[in-house]
Amino acid sequence: MSVYEKLKELQVVLPVPTPPVAAFVPTVQAGKLCFVSGHIAKRDGKPWAGQLGVNMRTEEGQRAARSIAIDLLGTLHHELGDLGRVRRIVKMLCLVNSGPAFTEQHLVANGASELLQEVFGKAGAHARSAIGVAQLPLGACVEIELIVEIR
Amino acid sequence: MSVYEKLKELQVVLPVPTPPVAAFVPTVQAGKLCFVSGHIAKRDGKPWAGQLGVNMRTEEGQRAARSIAIDLLGTLHHELGDLGRVRRIVKMLCLVNSGPAFTEQHLVANGASELLQEVFGKAGAHARSAIGVAQLPLGACVEIELIVEIR
Amino acid sequence: MSVYEKLKELQVVLPVPTPPVAAFVPTVQAGKLCFVSGHIAKRDGKPWAGQLGVNMRTEEGQRAARSIAIDLLGTLHHELGDLGRVRRIVKMLCLVNSGPAFTEQHLVANGASELLQEVFGKAGAHARSAIGVAQLPLGACVEIELIVEIR
Repeated sequence: MSVYEKLKELQVVLPVPTPPVAAFVPTVQAGKLCFVSGHIAKRDGKPWAGQLGVNMRTEEGQRAARSIAIDLLGTLHHELGDLGRVRRIVKMLCLVNSGPAFTEQHLVANGASELLQEVFGKAGAHARSAIGVAQLPLGACVEIELIVEIR
Repeated sequence: MSVYEKLKELQVVLPVPTPPVAAFVPTVQAGKLCFVSGHIAKRDGKPWAGQLGVNMRTEEGQRAARSIAIDLLGTLHHELGDLGRVRRIVKMLCLVNSGPAFTEQHLVANGASELLQEVFGKAGAHARSAIGVAQLPLGACVEIELIVEIR
Repeated sequence: MSVYEKLKELQVVLPVPTPPVAAFVPTVQAGKLCFVSGHIAKRDGKPWAGQLGVNMRTEEGQRAARSIAIDLLGTLHHELGDLGRVRRIVKMLCLVNSGPAFTEQHLVANGASELLQEVFGKAGAHARSAIGVAQLPLGACVEIELIVEIR
């Protein structure tokens, strides 16, 4: 099954990426590695604000992380032209806007990690760090960046 | 116009890099990628302490980020011997020492991103993540690390 | 002296790695780079919880960072089959669970950086960023990820 068939089965519709709101670009390729800029969580096209452990629960954070993974795929589709060029999801950095007592950043990140593995299978299994940060741009609840190996 | 002519036009004087104050090195090259250690903001040669949203405004944070970009160029010049060897600025991670309500990390990071694009043109356009962290070494207001593709 | 002889001299016993507790893998190789997932500090096999500047001092944080470096070597030994395949430790990201006034993240990170340099000599000298984060998975005091060049 192709990546696009899998997305259809999962009823995932890739968004049309919006340009970064600051002085950077969505992706840069260097050799076989494609570095994808941090994407913040969005809902209804606007920043999805919130802080885990303060006004958001883990399950909601997981949904936010999953939605970012879909946005990241939208960006990769747009930038690479074809998601079939993804050879491997190499590395994820998942930044979770966290109140002082919230310690489930790894579970929040799973929302994104699991989607990538559903879509890409073994090629979606990646190295990862998940951390709790003090704040994020526009108050977003989660931000995720990726390194992807392309063919 | 060469990178050095552009720096002259911008009236940017590259600093002589100071060795890291801890057990690491300024850059490591692996293949065509050069990984540049996190540089903290400095003023008058000392750590530029502060926290955005607490005792620093966005504009001041932007100046701090710009000054780090200049320090990063100083390091790259020293390590590579010639900034003409920079093929592409690939990826920036911008860490902003942030109070709980500060959400303009992306605007702070622009201070560095815009300088790199002024200096390198299209080759300066990079992928980026900007995040708000709880603290930074020596209380610095901003810290930035880079991945650079070299030729 | 081989890496394993050096480890013996330092009386370091490599742990058997435990699988990640979330939806990711310990390492991914892309070309000559091996990306190692963030490892949290553990003590007696359980997450080593704590926050620097709140209920942990710098010296204890250094010991935690050193213990993570040993765990990272255990993971690399298991994944690569032979630590002799490590050509260079390229980049470390050291995340320190930090209270609002703690500014010695770089000294905490030295606990890991120094061990890597003891074990690998010049090949252990790496680029690095050390930052203070609001929280970490399972309340861990320190988390470290690595990029390693392999042969």
